[in-house]
Amino acid sequence: MQKKTFADFDCAIAQTLEQIGDWWTLLIVRNAFHRMRNFDQFQDNLGIPTNTLSNRLKKLTDSGILVREKSKTDGRSYEYRLTEKGLDLYPVIIALFQWGERWYARPHGPRMSLTEKASGEEIPQMEVLNNKGEVLKAQDVLPTLGPGAGHQVSELLYHHKRKA
Amino acid sequence: MQKKTFADFDCAIAQTLEQIGDWWTLLIVRNAFHRMRNFDQFQDNLGIPTNTLSNRLKKLTDSGILVREKSKTDGRSYEYRLTEKGLDLYPVIIALFQWGERWYARPHGPRMSLTEKASGEEIPQMEVLNNKGEVLKAQDVLPTLGPGAGHQVSELLYHHKRKA
Repeated sequence: MQKKTFADFDCAIAQTLEQIGDWWTLLIVRNAFHRMRNFDQFQDNLGIPTNTLSNRLKKLTDSGILVREKSKTDGRSYEYRLTEKGLDLYPVIIALFQWGERWYARPHGPRMSLTEKASGEEIPQMEVLNNKGEVLKAQDVLPTLGPGAGHQVSELLYHHKRKA
Repeated sequence: MQKKTFADFDCAIAQTLEQIGDWWTLLIVRNAFHRMRNFDQFQDNLGIPTNTLSNRLKKLTDSGILVREKSKTDGRSYEYRLTEKGLDLYPVIIALFQWGERWYARPHGPRMSLTEKASGEEIPQMEVLNNKGEVLKAQDVLPTLGPGAGHQVSELLYHHKRKA
């Protein structure tokens, strides 16, 4: 795969992909949501080469998605934890998980079920909702140019409008 | 970046990334949500090399996220449209967009606003919700092993439980 940077693409999705848009990075974030904290655990679980893992952990700490702290139980080792910015990726992670479970289901049943601790009820499918909690599909939503839009987004919205 | 396949990783997120986990693929899907339909439009908007674009469009049609059809207005050209499986990525796309807008905001304001056509109201931030529509954070949710889990997911959940 081609190494390409999207840092100067002006789209919010491209900015997000610049931070988390590679497999390893997102799987490290997934593991951090499962309270995995240290280098060896990430490496064992993901089977990721040492230098790739170092590189991705550095990227994630540089961008403030993970924070690196001295371990409280072992002063010689470090732990990685999700920051507020990292924790804010939870809807992204769950949306990716649910899509994968839906379209790449396993013959024996789901890989994992997600239930609310308080009620024991299964988490419903994530949807784009309006303020009343009604499900919105792409055709129900109007994207409008904002003041922060650059060339690429402007062109895209112009295109969208022409086809509407 | 290393070319790595996750097809035999058993996690639903890894399966999703296998299909859409590269920048170009997700940006092509984003553009398709903006009703972009043909090769030249994708290429103009993304500035993507021809062979990379062909390759990604083939991958997306092979996996049933896009469908390739003869253009109704020009019988010699082809159009790409999102299938039901592709349209089902809408929550993923919006969650990625909102995270990017939040954490990589532009100084002049949002790049794009998303409003419900029917009401004109802005789409609220996507969250993981329970059945009552209350927001759930990662610590409110209990992941449990399902019958389809393989080794990697089992290990991850074992880890999660020990740390809970």
